[in-house]
Amino acid sequence: MLPCPPDQVERIAVLGTGTIGASWAAYFLSRGLTVSAYDPMPDSEADLRRRIEAAWPALEQLGLPAAADPDRVTVHADPAGAVRDVQAVQENAPEFMDAKLALYEAMEPGLPDDAVMISSSSGLIMSELQKGRVGPERYVLGHPFNPPHLIPLVEVVGGTATDPAVVDWTLQFYEAIGKVAIRLNKEVPGHLVNRMQAAIWREAIDAVATGLASVEDVDRGLAYGPGLRWAVMGPHLICALAGGEGGMPNYIDHFGPSIERWWKDLGTPTLTPEVRRKLIEGVEAEAAGRTVPDLVRERDKLLLAVLGALGRARDELNKEKVASG
Amino acid sequence: MLPCPPDQVERIAVLGTGTIGASWAAYFLSRGLTVSAYDPMPDSEADLRRRIEAAWPALEQLGLPAAADPDRVTVHADPAGAVRDVQAVQENAPEFMDAKLALYEAMEPGLPDDAVMISSSSGLIMSELQKGRVGPERYVLGHPFNPPHLIPLVEVVGGTATDPAVVDWTLQFYEAIGKVAIRLNKEVPGHLVNRMQAAIWREAIDAVATGLASVEDVDRGLAYGPGLRWAVMGPHLICALAGGEGGMPNYIDHFGPSIERWWKDLGTPTLTPEVRRKLIEGVEAEAAGRTVPDLVRERDKLLLAVLGALGRARDELNKEKVASG
Repeated sequence: MLPCPPDQVERIAVLGTGTIGASWAAYFLSRGLTVSAYDPMPDSEADLRRRIEAAWPALEQLGLPAAADPDRVTVHADPAGAVRDVQAVQENAPEFMDAKLALYEAMEPGLPDDAVMISSSSGLIMSELQKGRVGPERYVLGHPFNPPHLIPLVEVVGGTATDPAVVDWTLQFYEAIGKVAIRLNKEVPGHLVNRMQAAIWREAIDAVATGLASVEDVDRGLAYGPGLRWAVMGPHLICALAGGEGGMPNYIDHFGPSIERWWKDLGTPTLTPEVRRKLIEGVEAEAAGRTVPDLVRERDKLLLAVLGALGRARDELNKEKVASG
Repeated sequence: MLPCPPDQVERIAVLGTGTIGASWAAYFLSRGLTVSAYDPMPDSEADLRRRIEAAWPALEQLGLPAAADPDRVTVHADPAGAVRDVQAVQENAPEFMDAKLALYEAMEPGLPDDAVMISSSSGLIMSELQKGRVGPERYVLGHPFNPPHLIPLVEVVGGTATDPAVVDWTLQFYEAIGKVAIRLNKEVPGHLVNRMQAAIWREAIDAVATGLASVEDVDRGLAYGPGLRWAVMGPHLICALAGGEGGMPNYIDHFGPSIERWWKDLGTPTLTPEVRRKLIEGVEAEAAGRTVPDLVRERDKLLLAVLGALGRARDELNKEKVASG
């Protein structure tokens, strides 16, 4: 039982309107959806409206449909009221099983039978979250990346009790509103993309821990090197291109032995007090007086420039393809 | 004994003009340098001039000084002739110790006493390469990323016999011609950045090997998620921002335990025939009929869009800083 075709969602609830939830709310509004929100914190409504307002200029710059309206959000005093007549819910409660379960309990009396309930959880497992729920088959995980109103990616995976049709619907819903949604075939710690991030972090932290390079040089090494390539194509395709005309087979045969040798040598640091101190001091040196809000502003300005440039360049590539095909 | 101040290099030799060497040559020309080249392959001169011509429009788009001239390159029949009156050499011979050593032997009779000899090697160790050389103290490693005319990063590290002043000079030389040069404090397999790439690849390959996600979804997961963030800031700074107002200390204390748990669960795949087949088939499906040259063209068009957008946005940030400071 699904609420509507995935490209016809009009009303979505956002439960939990902290950093992630508020950014989701701004994104849904920017795609013309109506948002009903709930958060237990006092002053959460003013905070939510302030965060939506702050995100809006970037969303305008990326291009808005006529129907988009930052004021089409209502804030409810209880979660059951927020979900009363929605087709989907995006839940962003704190990353503790008890907090999520208490919210689900409180929401359930209002949740329409056919609504799809999507959790943003980065660390919890859907098979655990959906246990004992009314209609566990429409509970699914849709994990975004910070900030969700700018970063396209959402990871989608169902738990053991999730209806496969709900997983498909959720992937299509996100694609219909302009996100890039990927399908995970099983539940593992960190889903997929945080595992890849954890792998990079391990080596980035090891480089600092072992004195190979400074925090700043590790950061410059990634951001002015492979980070630029990964912004335009994923690691598998980038490797295939490094194989020259012979592509992926040539790449694996030519570079495979080196890579397997490097794998054996990769670091396995632990976050000891000494490593923690080196990381903190290194980031302080790199920030060179810029505060966290300064850096967030820089990050988002640069991200927006990259997203705009990639959007225009991909449009041109698509037009060339249409013209030549 | 150094050839000149690092920002006053006028003549550089490029030894080996395959993919990497030709891209280096185009970059040096684009910064107004005079290039003398050598490659043992027949037809290498025509190939080099063709590659420089192909790279030039992108370099023009990124902005050229008046002195830049794509024709200011001479091709020599022997390596000693190519290095005769240069201040620096960028060597790009095949990644085999014997090939590099034979080239050094052949080059040495022409090499000026004060010239700095930089190897692009990704896999060999400078301490081994410089053994037995005339003036081993001016041999240093400067490892670029593909394609070097577009990707700013160069990793710089000396061997045991390298003069520390040569390492400093090389870092400053690259920065003076617009590269982003990072200092490595020791020689380890894969230098720094290929180790971070190997760490990502391990997890990206493991996801395919274990059936967690398709090759295409792994690629989309990185390119539409963390890849976008890493194009603008390195992993340490990105983590610090995820710590909110509390920055890096808050990040480590809050997320450290999750990350250490993920580390324990990360994959350790091997490139078995079955994994090789899955990767090759997955990349074929993702390419959807696009050939390697099609994809290289796409990658470079998108890279150029990203580099242009980041350059303009960083200029604006710097102007704001100057205005407010």
